[in-house]
Amino acid sequence: MQLSTDQVSRYQRDGFLVVENLFSAAEVADLCAAFDADARVPGPQRVLEDDSDRVRAIYASHHRQREFADLVRTPRLLGPVHALLSDQVYVYQLKINAKPAFGGDKWGWHQDFLAWQLADLLPAPRLVNVAVLLDDSTEFNGPLIVVPGSHTLGELREHRSDQHRSEQHLDPDDISLRPDQLAGVVAERGLHSVKARAGSVVFFHPEIVHGSAPNMSPYPRRLLIVTYNDTRNLPMTPNPRPDYLVGRDTTPLRPTDVVTGVSR
Amino acid sequence: MQLSTDQVSRYQRDGFLVVENLFSAAEVADLCAAFDADARVPGPQRVLEDDSDRVRAIYASHHRQREFADLVRTPRLLGPVHALLSDQVYVYQLKINAKPAFGGDKWGWHQDFLAWQLADLLPAPRLVNVAVLLDDSTEFNGPLIVVPGSHTLGELREHRSDQHRSEQHLDPDDISLRPDQLAGVVAERGLHSVKARAGSVVFFHPEIVHGSAPNMSPYPRRLLIVTYNDTRNLPMTPNPRPDYLVGRDTTPLRPTDVVTGVSR
Repeated sequence: MQLSTDQVSRYQRDGFLVVENLFSAAEVADLCAAFDADARVPGPQRVLEDDSDRVRAIYASHHRQREFADLVRTPRLLGPVHALLSDQVYVYQLKINAKPAFGGDKWGWHQDFLAWQLADLLPAPRLVNVAVLLDDSTEFNGPLIVVPGSHTLGELREHRSDQHRSEQHLDPDDISLRPDQLAGVVAERGLHSVKARAGSVVFFHPEIVHGSAPNMSPYPRRLLIVTYNDTRNLPMTPNPRPDYLVGRDTTPLRPTDVVTGVSR
Repeated sequence: MQLSTDQVSRYQRDGFLVVENLFSAAEVADLCAAFDADARVPGPQRVLEDDSDRVRAIYASHHRQREFADLVRTPRLLGPVHALLSDQVYVYQLKINAKPAFGGDKWGWHQDFLAWQLADLLPAPRLVNVAVLLDDSTEFNGPLIVVPGSHTLGELREHRSDQHRSEQHLDPDDISLRPDQLAGVVAERGLHSVKARAGSVVFFHPEIVHGSAPNMSPYPRRLLIVTYNDTRNLPMTPNPRPDYLVGRDTTPLRPTDVVTGVSR
């Protein structure tokens, strides 16, 4: 798939771009079934709820499930990513968040790139996030909320001198913005929540300010996020995080339009 | 103020009714100034944030601030309350919630009347809640969310045999609904969030299922709720909660349209 010039311009201006219904209901059902299969695979890549054995998140499902290996190579994602970032990209991280009914803490306001600088010594914000909605996203189930255009402001939060690299998952408190750091930006640029049908895709910039509220609905809400990195922007840390958190295979991805139903 | 027949019918059908812009911006500013004054009065009626000296909630401001004493008697509130409930009502409870920026936990799904049965041995759901928006309510700052029509379903949550009456504030866990108790109702009736300008008023039934998410915006969000009870529906408990939580003066309120700017 190719983005229009207007779509590329909007991404550059706003820091995000929604493409509705990029995957069909049948394709979404296939991805959800693959998620269910992956949820049965024990290991550190699978994060459970604190108080139950429900799965809250899974990392690197493309290492284990063919559907996701195909997904990260489909021209429907790689075409836009090539246009928005670079034609030399690899999967830096893939995760699926299953925000449970009535739960999932709110995820404070932050900019992703700060996290990756701290954790991985990533040189530059030369990445793009691709969020694939596996459930309808509504105002009630903790949608992604962004500050449009905030990716142009650079880092809003100062580095703390006592900040250390996390070995594993990042502590949101290490990267969260304070209200006073956000108030002026929001007064000027407002907030926008992404509400769209399952199968829609959101491309968003690694420096856009974003967050999400808890899921107030009685149904779970699954969101897949693939983060593509430019192959000329590799992490510099001598002690990389585990490969389910930060991809080791930095070979540039080539679009593949065969294989399963998802890859066309 | 008189509600139309249509407005009364909608309240009876939906369990809530929004009347927009019932108070002017100047009146709202007066109420906010009175809230600020009341926030400086120490005492158990004032609830602070856990981690700061910011005020999270104040009870019974109409006992101390003339603006709120006038507000609970204004025909603009009492007229509708007389039409929706009874012409013999008094203030059962008045509270102002200041949901802080980036905070205020989500308030789980519940029906108010269960709480008042447990805490006060209140005989029947013969009350009406009147929420006065002191700030604009948006999808981002933790608006009231209701399940339309759910007030007709009776109590969705079973009483637990180990439930005890709280001496003070109620524990949300004692009255919160579980996802399985709500899933079918929401599938059938959906969810509705109240988004309206400051000065708007929401009338809602004591048995409507409602909740709210945290405030994701960088600004506080103040909401005043007056709960009127029918004077023939007094609490039966021999050990009443403090009078800032449950009103002792059960004299029927008469509309007063003089006094301050708010009482017309």
